[in-house]
Amino acid sequence: MERLRVYLAGPDVFAADALAIGRRKKELCAIYGFEGLFPLDNDVPPAEAGRDRKIYRACVSMLQLADFGIFNLTPFRGPSADVGTVFELAMMIALGKPAFAYTNASADLLERVGRLEPIAFDAASESWRDAAQQLVEDFGNADNLMIDAALVEQGHPIVRRNAPSADLSGFEECLRRAAASLRGEPG
Amino acid sequence: MERLRVYLAGPDVFAADALAIGRRKKELCAIYGFEGLFPLDNDVPPAEAGRDRKIYRACVSMLQLADFGIFNLTPFRGPSADVGTVFELAMMIALGKPAFAYTNASADLLERVGRLEPIAFDAASESWRDAAQQLVEDFGNADNLMIDAALVEQGHPIVRRNAPSADLSGFEECLRRAAASLRGEPG
Repeated sequence: MERLRVYLAGPDVFAADALAIGRRKKELCAIYGFEGLFPLDNDVPPAEAGRDRKIYRACVSMLQLADFGIFNLTPFRGPSADVGTVFELAMMIALGKPAFAYTNASADLLERVGRLEPIAFDAASESWRDAAQQLVEDFGNADNLMIDAALVEQGHPIVRRNAPSADLSGFEECLRRAAASLRGEPG
Repeated sequence: MERLRVYLAGPDVFAADALAIGRRKKELCAIYGFEGLFPLDNDVPPAEAGRDRKIYRACVSMLQLADFGIFNLTPFRGPSADVGTVFELAMMIALGKPAFAYTNASADLLERVGRLEPIAFDAASESWRDAAQQLVEDFGNADNLMIDAALVEQGHPIVRRNAPSADLSGFEECLRRAAASLRGEPG
């Protein structure tokens, strides 16, 4: 039987040891009977003109080829997930394919914003506000509601663990859930 | 003739004067012959259980109803755009509908990351790295390549202007481009 293909999205592609993370994730995928597709496997030579557009097209092709995706939503340069990863998550959901996600920062968005800047509860609007008086969502979610709710609607809430950014136990939990959900194996 | 409907996405929904921004944007849409759909027009009572999922579903329905979208990609709580807006942008692109976008911070991603934390050029990998040794893209783009390239592929590069966050001249430029592109009017 052909193995299901899983798109491996995350800011992992920006890490100093990106290729090693990709290899490790693909090894774990194989253990769970899946074939991992890692964005850096797309060979786009560094000096090529229009390289960003070629990488974009290659990633979209990989998303279309994949049967499902696992998304690393660990906060990246701020309180929220990497925007490139979020873009790919939304695209996969719009394609009607299953998406699983994890974050290695278990605290909810409100708490994480509050660690980065002063926040205060505004009685008039009954909402939390950041230093620029912008509303901070307070749904207990890991991130913006579009992200959390999209995954809940699919029946796969974000796996939230407090772990070092390179830790892959949340990733493995996504693999277990994918095996249970897509192949009916015990979760 | 029925007016084309435009989904108005952006972190505007979090602003202290969110409703006023929405009204102003819809007025501008009308001037250009479009009907603006603002997410906060979805009536989801504050205390309702599962409110985040209801807002998510309402936004997705609005995206599906819209003929095209205009996305405010001005950086939000960090060097990148609001993740909720990026999620909606990707969904609209996956739906095959035209997307126009603007940002009121004209500097490219590399420069903006460098304002927030120390960055350095790494000779070995021939790439810029942030304080955590993570790669910082250097394509001259406004944001992550998935965002910029998706819009370039559609023929509508991000409108980049240096302006106060509430300034709507970039938004109006998107309306002009939409009128030119969707109705063949002079740009």
